[in-house]
Amino acid sequence: MRTVYLNGAYLPENEANISIFDRGFLFADGVYEVTTVVDGKLIGFEGHIQRLQRSLDELSFGHKIDREELLGIHRELVSLNGIDQGMIYLQITRGNPGDRDFAFPPADTPVTMVLFTQEKQVVGTSVEANGLKIISVEDLRWGRRDIKTVQLLYPSLAKMEAKARGADDAWLLQDGFVTEGTSNNAYIVNGGKIITRDLSKDILHGITRKSVLDCARLLQMEVEERPFTLKEAYGADEAFVTSASGFTNPVVEIDGKTIGTGKPGPVGDKLRQLYLEENRKAAL
Amino acid sequence: MRTVYLNGAYLPENEANISIFDRGFLFADGVYEVTTVVDGKLIGFEGHIQRLQRSLDELSFGHKIDREELLGIHRELVSLNGIDQGMIYLQITRGNPGDRDFAFPPADTPVTMVLFTQEKQVVGTSVEANGLKIISVEDLRWGRRDIKTVQLLYPSLAKMEAKARGADDAWLLQDGFVTEGTSNNAYIVNGGKIITRDLSKDILHGITRKSVLDCARLLQMEVEERPFTLKEAYGADEAFVTSASGFTNPVVEIDGKTIGTGKPGPVGDKLRQLYLEENRKAAL
Repeated sequence: MRTVYLNGAYLPENEANISIFDRGFLFADGVYEVTTVVDGKLIGFEGHIQRLQRSLDELSFGHKIDREELLGIHRELVSLNGIDQGMIYLQITRGNPGDRDFAFPPADTPVTMVLFTQEKQVVGTSVEANGLKIISVEDLRWGRRDIKTVQLLYPSLAKMEAKARGADDAWLLQDGFVTEGTSNNAYIVNGGKIITRDLSKDILHGITRKSVLDCARLLQMEVEERPFTLKEAYGADEAFVTSASGFTNPVVEIDGKTIGTGKPGPVGDKLRQLYLEENRKAAL
Repeated sequence: MRTVYLNGAYLPENEANISIFDRGFLFADGVYEVTTVVDGKLIGFEGHIQRLQRSLDELSFGHKIDREELLGIHRELVSLNGIDQGMIYLQITRGNPGDRDFAFPPADTPVTMVLFTQEKQVVGTSVEANGLKIISVEDLRWGRRDIKTVQLLYPSLAKMEAKARGADDAWLLQDGFVTEGTSNNAYIVNGGKIITRDLSKDILHGITRKSVLDCARLLQMEVEERPFTLKEAYGADEAFVTSASGFTNPVVEIDGKTIGTGKPGPVGDKLRQLYLEENRKAAL
């Protein structure tokens, strides 16, 4: 049984309960981060806590996170649960005001903070070797996807739709352009050039995205940050996604159409290697 | 202290807890209804449970609600908490699969069902007498507002923005047209004609909306169901909103502009009276 963290206490997972009045439960008034663990160490921790603070600020939480405290909790959970590879999930909600009201609770209402571990192979996966089959669906999410909120019902529905259609995941489309994947950023490679949507409120500002683009520049690859169409993706030499726990993962099929050779492409592979190398060095 | 209902048990409100792994908490994977209580009786109950079942079906919950059971729980909560006027909130989530995964849990995972009461004056309110001041904000919600999910962060933010700007609530705008209010449907009256947005995935299919439009037709008022612009609203003779616990409530100001005479209008008033009269007769 896992040990999880809830509001200051380390608890067996089946004793970690929150009130039905928690705003995370009643209003989806919460934000989250997922930090990957490799060799028992945290990948990209600084980026995740910076984004977490940004999410809180964008939603006027008025809560300042304590880097040292969070690092300590992450490490304690890794240790208590003996995690070598996997993730640490962290969620902060606007707490429990004791009743349901659309208006925010008083500023001194304590936030709810939950962290738990998930053991999962992240290095040397079958997805890395075989690639993902993707479908495209309309992007029906809210307009502030740059804030990492728990409003994840649509990504969940899109993943289920992908499964139902024999695929692994979905890319989301807005006005004919790909925004991103359900829980990852989306890339195509054409003529050696890496194309991924530019940062805006339309997509998550991926921590892995940033690091992978830094790697691409280190490797003197050309990067173009702009929206790309589904049609461009169909005709790309290569496609891939990035996410905290997937690093870069190849996309070999979109809407039943083979991408490039139908095998994981060399650009995504190279980026994955360098990403892992660099981020393992910097792991905490 | 209130008595609330959680998964088969009646509990003191401070003992009603759910797992941190509940999909309502982690993915906003839940739907809800709010039924109003007047004279200790339920207003519009049939409409609410029909919409609840529709919300569940649209999200592939595979859960069939039991009308008699729900009616029993509603009545028991009214009785246990001595509610004369107020609301009963009901939420169903896709339950607790024991870990976090975007994919839906196995079909036999029990849903989480929560109900609680809120005491509140609903008849003869100051809002009814004085009207609401409204601001307009962009509608940034997801694309399936016809499904009553707990993804309520944006309506919550919009209400806070309204408060910050000295108003009571917000109307949401899509391509220059009003979709609806943060937690109500929106109406204007022009030349005696009631105009309200037609039903689609863009707005909630309000139970009160339906009943109020039935009342309007009974009163031989002309009703036009179509999108209207903010500019039309500024120039309207009258404006109002409908919601389960607000019935019809007058809107007297939009974005600082006085609507009509600046007093609650006669059409909304008449509809409120007939709505209450009819629905009190039909209350359970």
